[in-house]
Amino acid sequence: MKTSRLLRLRLGLFAAVFAWIATPLAALRAAQTTVEQWGVFEVALKGPSEGNPFTDVRLTANFTDGVRMIEATGFYDGNGVYRVRFMPDKPGAWSYETKSNRWPLADKSGIFTVTPATGKNHGPVRVRNTYHFAYADGTPFKPLGTTMYSWTHRPKEMEELTLKTLASAPFNKVRMAVFPQAHGVKFMPVERFPFQGKAPRDWDFTRFNPEFFQHLEKRVADLAALGIECDLILFHPYDDDEEWGFETMDAKTDDFYLRYVVARLAAYRNIWWSVGNEYDFLRTKTESDWDRYFQVIQKADPHNHLRSIHNGKLIYNHNQPWVTHVSMQNGMATEEAGRAELYRDVYRKPIVYDELKYEGTHGLRWAQLSGQEMVHRFWNCTVAGTYGGHSEFFEDERQVVWLAQGGELKGNSAPGLAFLKKILDEAPAEGLEPHDQWQDPRIAGKSGHYYLMYFGVEKPTSWAIELYRNGLQDGMQFKIEVIDTAEHTITPVEGVFTLKKKDRYSFTDRDGREVKLPGKPYMALRITYAGGTPPLSTAKPPMEP
Amino acid sequence: MKTSRLLRLRLGLFAAVFAWIATPLAALRAAQTTVEQWGVFEVALKGPSEGNPFTDVRLTANFTDGVRMIEATGFYDGNGVYRVRFMPDKPGAWSYETKSNRWPLADKSGIFTVTPATGKNHGPVRVRNTYHFAYADGTPFKPLGTTMYSWTHRPKEMEELTLKTLASAPFNKVRMAVFPQAHGVKFMPVERFPFQGKAPRDWDFTRFNPEFFQHLEKRVADLAALGIECDLILFHPYDDDEEWGFETMDAKTDDFYLRYVVARLAAYRNIWWSVGNEYDFLRTKTESDWDRYFQVIQKADPHNHLRSIHNGKLIYNHNQPWVTHVSMQNGMATEEAGRAELYRDVYRKPIVYDELKYEGTHGLRWAQLSGQEMVHRFWNCTVAGTYGGHSEFFEDERQVVWLAQGGELKGNSAPGLAFLKKILDEAPAEGLEPHDQWQDPRIAGKSGHYYLMYFGVEKPTSWAIELYRNGLQDGMQFKIEVIDTAEHTITPVEGVFTLKKKDRYSFTDRDGREVKLPGKPYMALRITYAGGTPPLSTAKPPMEP
Repeated sequence: MKTSRLLRLRLGLFAAVFAWIATPLAALRAAQTTVEQWGVFEVALKGPSEGNPFTDVRLTANFTDGVRMIEATGFYDGNGVYRVRFMPDKPGAWSYETKSNRWPLADKSGIFTVTPATGKNHGPVRVRNTYHFAYADGTPFKPLGTTMYSWTHRPKEMEELTLKTLASAPFNKVRMAVFPQAHGVKFMPVERFPFQGKAPRDWDFTRFNPEFFQHLEKRVADLAALGIECDLILFHPYDDDEEWGFETMDAKTDDFYLRYVVARLAAYRNIWWSVGNEYDFLRTKTESDWDRYFQVIQKADPHNHLRSIHNGKLIYNHNQPWVTHVSMQNGMATEEAGRAELYRDVYRKPIVYDELKYEGTHGLRWAQLSGQEMVHRFWNCTVAGTYGGHSEFFEDERQVVWLAQGGELKGNSAPGLAFLKKILDEAPAEGLEPHDQWQDPRIAGKSGHYYLMYFGVEKPTSWAIELYRNGLQDGMQFKIEVIDTAEHTITPVEGVFTLKKKDRYSFTDRDGREVKLPGKPYMALRITYAGGTPPLSTAKPPMEP
Repeated sequence: MKTSRLLRLRLGLFAAVFAWIATPLAALRAAQTTVEQWGVFEVALKGPSEGNPFTDVRLTANFTDGVRMIEATGFYDGNGVYRVRFMPDKPGAWSYETKSNRWPLADKSGIFTVTPATGKNHGPVRVRNTYHFAYADGTPFKPLGTTMYSWTHRPKEMEELTLKTLASAPFNKVRMAVFPQAHGVKFMPVERFPFQGKAPRDWDFTRFNPEFFQHLEKRVADLAALGIECDLILFHPYDDDEEWGFETMDAKTDDFYLRYVVARLAAYRNIWWSVGNEYDFLRTKTESDWDRYFQVIQKADPHNHLRSIHNGKLIYNHNQPWVTHVSMQNGMATEEAGRAELYRDVYRKPIVYDELKYEGTHGLRWAQLSGQEMVHRFWNCTVAGTYGGHSEFFEDERQVVWLAQGGELKGNSAPGLAFLKKILDEAPAEGLEPHDQWQDPRIAGKSGHYYLMYFGVEKPTSWAIELYRNGLQDGMQFKIEVIDTAEHTITPVEGVFTLKKKDRYSFTDRDGREVKLPGKPYMALRITYAGGTPPLSTAKPPMEP
């Protein structure tokens, strides 16, 4: 975030107000005088439309709340209209002043009032507690995402159907691409493109198509209204026949495009930047290109949205400082929790398995999961202290698949994921941490307070109470619920269990009781502190590996 | 490696010879006039013993074969003797010339002849094929290491017993520490320390104890004679009561110590630098200290030996460019091959699980593996395209354990590891690569030529021939051997199997035959190309994740 303290801290706001009084016309041109905290505040100005406004005109605005000054870059939106957008992060009085190399756009200033956030607006999502996320207002965000790469490139009815599906689905994050994808275009041709010109590959890469981006923004806002984060993919390799050529733009055009997208969309609170999808399948780009894209975005984005990159078979160096969280593709790693948790300690960042293979009946191995297997993998991710990602590939006669176009869900996993989401919503706000990570990857939670244990494909008939020592002491009481993740049931076990130390490492039930289990796969336990001796406040991650 | 091309390429050797003729005394002072390729060539010189020779005197020598010039740093070895050591990497005529800030050590020069390597001398080990190792002469090196942290700090008889044990054990790498370890010192007090002074903590950290290092070097050379690599741990947290204080030296002393160790030992071809063991348990050091240690070593070592660091519970960023390979502690990750392989793609470097927990009957969870479980974990590492590391903790009444003091092996894993080593020695020189890594972690090899498949704790009674397509085509023939990794037997299956394409992904036996298996755990298959259609020469890693 470009933030610099004003030299004149106390005078800043007064100066801005004075500037506004001095140039009343500028203020009138701004569309708004109030905006919600973390809403999109927009300054709209008339300016030159001759020449190439996309390349010739520079426009920025400094926004201040009297303490910080934040610079946002504007963009040309066609028809002689320029806009600067800004997401204020704090209620109260704000002001702005523009700078430009064209006089009709320069030195325009104004004030506006930021009102508190309402409804589903919790601000942008940030990393919290190293491995987890929260909205800016502190509300936990536990990703349960899905992918529809190209749902915004479809006919209006299809897009509205997709939104309707999302409204009642469990997903709180959508991965989607700026550039269209080839899949299914035979039946639903792409109506808008990001550049002026026409397919195949006859674009003016120096001129964007504002209408394309206006539409994209509308869909981003539609998601925000549903409380859904938009994990926006900036490059992908899915122009199968290179019909469009967006995969092979030169470096200068790539950067020009990124800066334009960021200028338009960074003020939308639900934006995440996914720099590339299966980035390594884009054969014309090198790893240093991807490093540069990250840095271009980071520099351009005044709001410091989350940044990630999604691999094909070559894993990016997510230890790079500009990566905020890991967007992993490795379905094999989610087949059991012991695999899924390993990336956490490598990167010390949140791990989101945005592709753990897809639900479907495709001939290809990456889209053959049953609904149950999809849900199973999410549970593995959960008790590994990581997050899963959904999509499905059931193709109809018009090549419509959720993964590409959205539309309606045809698979069976959504109810199981909704059930998991409910459990996550009730879980500790801090996020679930592996509880005994060097020994037993099946259990995660908040030591001394809450545990979720998942047996996966095991078929236990009982569980002898045994919890790793961290956070525990004699006399603590826990209630235990048996969760059938396949049937979506939660069955409390009668009574409470009182702990006593068993050996150096673990605590067990004082009365030697066991939990009965039905000998089926996909069973889990929820173990919650229920009284007695208080939890040890000094609970720490296990010391002995 | 400090290598700079001489400006006078052709004249270099002549100039050196001329310098030697001009100063014949200097040449006489060098201990050697011939040395084996990758042997230790040493220049010994008499110099000042007054003041503090460790801190006051600077001595380097430039070595050249007439093409390259390589600078090595000398060290004070006590009694007025200074030495510069060098490991020539090429047979032929070499020369050297010293530089010093003390005239008796400056401008000494000489020539020497490097003869071809003999016997077990294959040169230093380097990384090869991204995930594997080879000696400098091209011979594959497949690590099968063990750990005896403090075996060189023991009475002579104990150290000789350790060497005797190693002579008939399967291990080709030993992890060992420069600094002593507290374990067992009650019964075997440490006889030598690296600094002058005495315990507890009464050291002159500006003066090394040459006798300590002379002894250490002898043991490093003893290992080299056995064909064993020395993975030398430079810092560790095992001074339990801080009796010695080597864990809490200041930054300047740390660096001074590292440079002295490197000056003394870098010419030993079997040296690997392990910067820290359970580095994160050294609470007085920060991650930037460890970054710096790596860089100090890298800069000081003219021979560019392998460099790694070994974690406790905080994994170092092995993506740093100064890390040559990963020395991992995570026993849980080696419980099955699907976990073990995940670190490969993260780091794109060789993965060595130097601690995957220990064989033993200790009360602590890190030393409770059965011999069979130890061998099982090595097999998991193997088919994951990674390498395991052994040690054991069976304590006798004098607190002698292999992990700390060496001595004799008391566990059961060595024969199973020797059996695995034989199989690895017969496997492709390039190293084993996961064959279908996004789908089936049980199989590794060289596509189209050789596969090793390990069933682990599964108890199959048969295996329907099914190999992932990479490198395969119809009509290729394979022989199959059934390996019982617990019984150490290899049983050929009669006849050969001829492949035919089964589906998009896999090939199967033309005649629908299966391999019968005994329904026991720990079984493996060795599948070797045996004729018919040739393997596809374009075999590549699987494209579809």
